[in-house]
Amino acid sequence: MEILDGKIVSAKVLENIKNESSIIIEKAGRPPGLAVVIVGDDPASAIYVRSKERKARKLGFHSEVIESNSSVSDEELTSVIAKLNIDDKIDGILVQLPLPEKFDTWKYLDMIDPEKDVDRFHPVNLGKIMLGRTNIYPCTPSGIVRMLDEYNVDVTGMNCVVLGRSYIVGKPMASMLTNRNATVTICHSRTKNIPEILSRADLIVSAIGIPGFVKADMVKDGSILIDVGINRVDTREAAEEFCTSKEIEKFEKKGYAITGDIHPAAFEKSSFYTPVPGGVGLMTVAMLMDNTFRLFLARTGS
Amino acid sequence: MEILDGKIVSAKVLENIKNESSIIIEKAGRPPGLAVVIVGDDPASAIYVRSKERKARKLGFHSEVIESNSSVSDEELTSVIAKLNIDDKIDGILVQLPLPEKFDTWKYLDMIDPEKDVDRFHPVNLGKIMLGRTNIYPCTPSGIVRMLDEYNVDVTGMNCVVLGRSYIVGKPMASMLTNRNATVTICHSRTKNIPEILSRADLIVSAIGIPGFVKADMVKDGSILIDVGINRVDTREAAEEFCTSKEIEKFEKKGYAITGDIHPAAFEKSSFYTPVPGGVGLMTVAMLMDNTFRLFLARTGS
Repeated sequence: MEILDGKIVSAKVLENIKNESSIIIEKAGRPPGLAVVIVGDDPASAIYVRSKERKARKLGFHSEVIESNSSVSDEELTSVIAKLNIDDKIDGILVQLPLPEKFDTWKYLDMIDPEKDVDRFHPVNLGKIMLGRTNIYPCTPSGIVRMLDEYNVDVTGMNCVVLGRSYIVGKPMASMLTNRNATVTICHSRTKNIPEILSRADLIVSAIGIPGFVKADMVKDGSILIDVGINRVDTREAAEEFCTSKEIEKFEKKGYAITGDIHPAAFEKSSFYTPVPGGVGLMTVAMLMDNTFRLFLARTGS
Repeated sequence: MEILDGKIVSAKVLENIKNESSIIIEKAGRPPGLAVVIVGDDPASAIYVRSKERKARKLGFHSEVIESNSSVSDEELTSVIAKLNIDDKIDGILVQLPLPEKFDTWKYLDMIDPEKDVDRFHPVNLGKIMLGRTNIYPCTPSGIVRMLDEYNVDVTGMNCVVLGRSYIVGKPMASMLTNRNATVTICHSRTKNIPEILSRADLIVSAIGIPGFVKADMVKDGSILIDVGINRVDTREAAEEFCTSKEIEKFEKKGYAITGDIHPAAFEKSSFYTPVPGGVGLMTVAMLMDNTFRLFLARTGS
């Protein structure tokens, strides 16, 4: 088993952006601009947003975070996005999800100019992904494909199983793998025979958010295991069962540890796997920067 | 085995439109309007277009066919679609496919106002289908779902296999089945183990265009077999192997006969199946009328 190393690949992605962008920024007279809209006080969202901002600044991007508390009105939120749509400094607009419940998420995602839609959740961009007519993709599936490319994994003809049917991961992931000539099965909460389906998979992408969901006896020898889950476990017992040794150490200090959806014993049977942490999560942020940079290139005609 | 009867279900769809539309047409002061743009002289396309026109007229719809020969310029074709987009009499615009090779098909499909996109191939509409955010779908997969509903087939939890990954049938079909809680696998030319995958399917949708491709030994007892193929066979031997007795009779007169992708011996093992002709094909035209009517309802606010 070999690690698909998110640290190495994401560093490479960011390095490439840095190298390519310096000359182009000079020519364009401005850096790529990323705007993140965040509503309410979800602590996990706050952490994600800060990490995105930090990464953008580190690359020399222009970065804006527009924060509102959850009492913001529909008109105000609408106007925030409308202004960003016509702001020449901004190439990528992202609405941090989830929005507080009272907001109709799609209303705001649909409003984002598709040319500035850095998360690629606008229906016209998802449609183009289905059609194989774009090379900018939602960050998580895009990061997964980037890792596979880096390790020369060609999915042509592979039986791939995607666990989860969200528009954030599962659905675009399935489209991308299909367009790359894999044979793809999407499983979800209503699927009846998940262990049986997993046992035939050459490659599994798990995005369901249950620690240890994919067990060793469900996967075949030599399969490729991609773990999108980022789950928090709060007991020593769970940490010891599901987590890496480093995370178990962290548990001692913090009282919780992070793990994915795939049981460590399943990784032992794999040819390649992505660890959690240190795998897909790092790629997601890196691809957000990559998407911002690509949108900047498109908008500046570079 | 029971026939999913395209004659009966399509007649019912058209009957429903007729019943519902009469009062609404009076209120709106105009009938639903369908415009078909056809370029070049492909004989099959000419037949399809005439059949669409006839069905529309029969329902009392306003129907226009805009014919151009294949020497039409990009500017002229662009202007045809632009005019239809702002023509108040027109609710549905359809570009008959395939366009002659020199035309960039997506340029024209992308130009159609998504609110008048009756075939639902515009990326924003395909994206909404992926997301489960629309109830108007491409005609062929929509007709299939309509038949399943009519015979009370609930696909929840079924293992469904879609053969073919076109944007016309396979991809939207897979999205629709996934959103209806089926577990869906898309197979295509690069899939390695089609017979094995088919043998586990509860429901198969075949859209690949090869007579007898799905054979009896590939399907399990009691499966549901949906045949999207419309293939012409030109030898008596092929007609006798693949076609219904009626089509074999026609072969005597015409020198060719029509069959789908699924071998008749496979149908014998099924719980439900769609015959060719008399199945999905009839539904496709009926759903085109249904889509036109729905777009009319949306545009007139009825």
